[in-house]
Amino acid sequence: MKHVAVLGAGRIGRIHATNLSQLAGITLSAVCDTAPDMAESLAQRLNTQARSIDAVFADPTIDAVVIASPTSTHSDLIQRSAQAGKHIFCEKPIDLSTQRALACATSVEQAGVACMLGFQRRFDPTFESIQQRLARGDIGKAEMLIITSRDPGAPPVDYLRQSGGVFRDMLIHDFDMFRWMLDDDAVWLSATGACLTDPAIAEAGDIDSAVVSIRTRSGRLCQINTSRRAAYGYDQRLEVLGSTGLLAAGNVRPVEVTHMDANGTTGANPEAFFLERYRVAYQRELAHFFETLQSGGAFRTSIHDGVAAQRLADAAAQSLATGQAVQLDAAEGSSKPRSGAAA
Amino acid sequence: MKHVAVLGAGRIGRIHATNLSQLAGITLSAVCDTAPDMAESLAQRLNTQARSIDAVFADPTIDAVVIASPTSTHSDLIQRSAQAGKHIFCEKPIDLSTQRALACATSVEQAGVACMLGFQRRFDPTFESIQQRLARGDIGKAEMLIITSRDPGAPPVDYLRQSGGVFRDMLIHDFDMFRWMLDDDAVWLSATGACLTDPAIAEAGDIDSAVVSIRTRSGRLCQINTSRRAAYGYDQRLEVLGSTGLLAAGNVRPVEVTHMDANGTTGANPEAFFLERYRVAYQRELAHFFETLQSGGAFRTSIHDGVAAQRLADAAAQSLATGQAVQLDAAEGSSKPRSGAAA
Amino acid sequence: MKHVAVLGAGRIGRIHATNLSQLAGITLSAVCDTAPDMAESLAQRLNTQARSIDAVFADPTIDAVVIASPTSTHSDLIQRSAQAGKHIFCEKPIDLSTQRALACATSVEQAGVACMLGFQRRFDPTFESIQQRLARGDIGKAEMLIITSRDPGAPPVDYLRQSGGVFRDMLIHDFDMFRWMLDDDAVWLSATGACLTDPAIAEAGDIDSAVVSIRTRSGRLCQINTSRRAAYGYDQRLEVLGSTGLLAAGNVRPVEVTHMDANGTTGANPEAFFLERYRVAYQRELAHFFETLQSGGAFRTSIHDGVAAQRLADAAAQSLATGQAVQLDAAEGSSKPRSGAAA
Amino acid sequence: MKHVAVLGAGRIGRIHATNLSQLAGITLSAVCDTAPDMAESLAQRLNTQARSIDAVFADPTIDAVVIASPTSTHSDLIQRSAQAGKHIFCEKPIDLSTQRALACATSVEQAGVACMLGFQRRFDPTFESIQQRLARGDIGKAEMLIITSRDPGAPPVDYLRQSGGVFRDMLIHDFDMFRWMLDDDAVWLSATGACLTDPAIAEAGDIDSAVVSIRTRSGRLCQINTSRRAAYGYDQRLEVLGSTGLLAAGNVRPVEVTHMDANGTTGANPEAFFLERYRVAYQRELAHFFETLQSGGAFRTSIHDGVAAQRLADAAAQSLATGQAVQLDAAEGSSKPRSGAAA
Repeated sequence: MKHVAVLGAGRIGRIHATNLSQLAGITLSAVCDTAPDMAESLAQRLNTQARSIDAVFADPTIDAVVIASPTSTHSDLIQRSAQAGKHIFCEKPIDLSTQRALACATSVEQAGVACMLGFQRRFDPTFESIQQRLARGDIGKAEMLIITSRDPGAPPVDYLRQSGGVFRDMLIHDFDMFRWMLDDDAVWLSATGACLTDPAIAEAGDIDSAVVSIRTRSGRLCQINTSRRAAYGYDQRLEVLGSTGLLAAGNVRPVEVTHMDANGTTGANPEAFFLERYRVAYQRELAHFFETLQSGGAFRTSIHDGVAAQRLADAAAQSLATGQAVQLDAAEGSSKPRSGAAA
Repeated sequence: MKHVAVLGAGRIGRIHATNLSQLAGITLSAVCDTAPDMAESLAQRLNTQARSIDAVFADPTIDAVVIASPTSTHSDLIQRSAQAGKHIFCEKPIDLSTQRALACATSVEQAGVACMLGFQRRFDPTFESIQQRLARGDIGKAEMLIITSRDPGAPPVDYLRQSGGVFRDMLIHDFDMFRWMLDDDAVWLSATGACLTDPAIAEAGDIDSAVVSIRTRSGRLCQINTSRRAAYGYDQRLEVLGSTGLLAAGNVRPVEVTHMDANGTTGANPEAFFLERYRVAYQRELAHFFETLQSGGAFRTSIHDGVAAQRLADAAAQSLATGQAVQLDAAEGSSKPRSGAAA
Repeated sequence: MKHVAVLGAGRIGRIHATNLSQLAGITLSAVCDTAPDMAESLAQRLNTQARSIDAVFADPTIDAVVIASPTSTHSDLIQRSAQAGKHIFCEKPIDLSTQRALACATSVEQAGVACMLGFQRRFDPTFESIQQRLARGDIGKAEMLIITSRDPGAPPVDYLRQSGGVFRDMLIHDFDMFRWMLDDDAVWLSATGACLTDPAIAEAGDIDSAVVSIRTRSGRLCQINTSRRAAYGYDQRLEVLGSTGLLAAGNVRPVEVTHMDANGTTGANPEAFFLERYRVAYQRELAHFFETLQSGGAFRTSIHDGVAAQRLADAAAQSLATGQAVQLDAAEGSSKPRSGAAA
Repeated sequence: MKHVAVLGAGRIGRIHATNLSQLAGITLSAVCDTAPDMAESLAQRLNTQARSIDAVFADPTIDAVVIASPTSTHSDLIQRSAQAGKHIFCEKPIDLSTQRALACATSVEQAGVACMLGFQRRFDPTFESIQQRLARGDIGKAEMLIITSRDPGAPPVDYLRQSGGVFRDMLIHDFDMFRWMLDDDAVWLSATGACLTDPAIAEAGDIDSAVVSIRTRSGRLCQINTSRRAAYGYDQRLEVLGSTGLLAAGNVRPVEVTHMDANGTTGANPEAFFLERYRVAYQRELAHFFETLQSGGAFRTSIHDGVAAQRLADAAAQSLATGQAVQLDAAEGSSKPRSGAAA
């Protein structure tokens, strides 16, 4: 039985805490939040305790923490968790500064704790099936990846102001998908974008619409397109062209209902947003975390994957700012090492 | 907090017990099975007790039972549960004899307990959406219902021998769908079929392929087609033609992956079988049972719905046996009264 | 070079005449119509002559006729064409009376001319692909056929009054599909229906909604459902369940456009009606007629196929009238002989 | 009655000549080819004459020419046709040199003849429907265009060597689609690519896989991805994200057949290649040419559209060569003027 604390009782913290409470072999020992009310109400609902973060770090019976607090607190909590000898599951991103993210990776390695990053899309059954079929050669050699990643609507401008920008906040997941699907180093990246949906986003220094192109060391190509606003819902698709075929991930719908009338043949829109779309992925990533802690193998999404995705986000931000393509040092943008788990 | 016992620790009993253990406000107080090992192992997994059925009936703290034992035991358990004053959730069918099923309905009414029948398809989000859209007039007046209901493979012949035949065992769900979707009385029914997939099924006195046509009092039409074997998986579709359009329920797939190569464009097959296809429906029907017990309203699927579906199955069996259409007495085949819940 | 006359310059006659004018190796020598204006205007458009039917029959240079006149004239024109030694392509049906249809078949055989019936659906690329794949065993042994056949709207009641009823006028095509796809003799048929869309249809002695079930000698099953009104357009689908899989024919759309917005994901409706849906099939059936005349082989759709489909329509009409299933004499309802072409 | 000559009796010349021969009001007066056999055989098949190009230019009864000869001859033939006072329908591209293409545009204007360029995709019913729905505001304001443009296989390397490269030879159509769909000036373009499918293509100095990103003056974004090889056939899709929704053009299939078995649910692949995919578009573009000549309006695809698309192809080639994004002078890359037709 592993004992776990969830740090952060906001939206994503509640998801993780609830999923933990249904995992066999796991005891949810504490939930923490700087807002005591939120911690308390979550604790009551899940029949556990609201405790202070200090108490969690000081409690030797707690094996692992799930960091689900605001981004600005991640690097500090990772480092304190590492020092306290707790295994770490951390929501993305590690830190808006790639420098600090690297420092976190170093701390984790030095402390000898395991650290998994919450790139939940790698645990989505549809994307996982694509990756497995790529790996077993179902379409020969992968040549081109096209990712469509659109949110149903933008978050509040206050959030955007400290989000690190659309590449670090939103496309970080897509950069990770690129790395996972093509399993190759980016050597060239070009990005552009605009603010088309809401002038307030431009005033906050961000864009809402962007396109990115990447070429890898072996010449494979990737295109990512994104928007903060898709009127029809959360649009999460990708396709990989290979030498002998194509694999495509379509959207998931809440119901399989078709309505036909004089106006056309209408089906349901995609799941509304990430909590619905990745409901199963959030469950599966936590199960993977504990299974991997148990087995001692490598996490599917290590802290190094987080750093590598962030480097691509940095390059995209630079390309947007300069209007020019960016050459990537493969050594830095490298996807290796891939893992960082411990027993 | 309601206290509940699950009677039967087989496949469907385990599903219900697990779902109960995750419902807020419910305590799973006992699981029972004539095979003590199965009851014990389920009880341990869900942190409850294996008890005898007699002990359950004698325990005044237990409010309700979930009957998930073999069909042949249903009517006896319903009647004993009613006498013991327990509210009842019972898997379909009530009994292979419509006579005995009616007796159960009478017992339940006399005892004043609530009794809901497990027609889980009414709790499937896709079918529920269709029914709601029909009810609000999205396609005008419903005129014709086409149901495709195919299993991936036949159960063991030993099971088939005592199943009551394909109409009572398998199409009972589709007869219930007919009643729910068209909300009208059947007045004419014709059925035919054959044994095409396995001679052992014919030797057991059953068929594996069947088609049924129904006409209702107001002239609405329904066709049901079924097979015990669909090589591509569990096929559960229906469509309703209305005066201003059509509503169709498609199959649900486990992943949204498309593979294209020289041989064509290939997507995933439907969910494998009913446990996968109706996973959410099984959760939702139990939640409905307890919410309705609480609210005192009518169940969506009462014991009377079970009786009415069985009458249609009887008529289909008669039509198959005689080679002739059957006129239904609307008074008997009536879909009223619909409910039977109590506070 | 074959010389051909088209008898009838109405809607379907114009289609056939236009298609003939674009066939290599064919000279459209005459068009005939009891309305001289229509014949004249069609002749001018296609650069041919409007002539009387008598002149056509008397002209020894004319090899073949395409009968596209009203149904009530078919049997007379078939018999006169046969006597005149012209090969015959005739629109369905042969005649509303199966007796007279049989007499036509006899006349044709005695005269030694070739006679092909215009069941154009057998020349639709989608249905043809299904039939070929069935024949080569792509789904093992066929077990069950489901046909959906819905018109966008009913023809004028004046037409319906002399149409022979929905089974002979509309479902005749579906009965032919049944025979082509399952290649087996019907031994049991049950039909029911109602008038749901327009009381004027009932006053004309017809129904607009019908369902038919058929069982074949070897136990294969078929269900057909039909309506004179589908608000979303012309609905022409079928599916065949076989021992190792399923083959389904979907609707054909005029454009492949998808529109997504807050209301859902909407695609185009099917082609509007039979002239659009079967545009290519009408071209291909005429090409087949002349190729087969040339090669001396058997037509895909002989006059005997027309008689056999009509027997099924008669049986359906009888079942509807009596409320009882009909046993079919396989010898009469036989699908053999299949062909009747000559060199 | 317009009299027309087709210059070039190769694959595309035969398509145009056949389509002309079925257009009402058009006389196909001559076909020309430097290979007399090909001209002769085509002329015979279509019941017209094989003549020399000089004879065509000298014949005052000929109103218009369709230029379907090799690309290297286009600019010369355009200029000679213009001087001879013939209206011109010319296959894309005008000339591999944008300089010479511009000179052609000048010649045409000075001669006062009409000149339409064969961007047939604008006459495809699916793409046309998208463009019309964009124009009428069905998805609000267009923000982002994603184009997938993949051939089933590369042409012979000998062809590639003189093709002008993948951007001028293949993506010219997609650049035209970009201009038509977004109706805005490109100001920034970035392209990259690789040779992944066949080293012989690299030896010929070309690539086979490419991605292009474009930003317009008003910030709209476009991504194009392409490959010379898609194992599953000709892949021609696009989608436009707008402020209130999305419009997507899917592939067109030759049949609507679905096959399900234990391996999945398989549908037909897209039409094999451009001759099949754009069969109707080739017919409609010629009809448009003559209708517009008649009406005196503007062509949907003028010679200026050809020049503008070529400028984007030049910019893409430059970006690929330099590894850097290209700023486009909107005045040069301008999409205006759009038309150039005369009466």
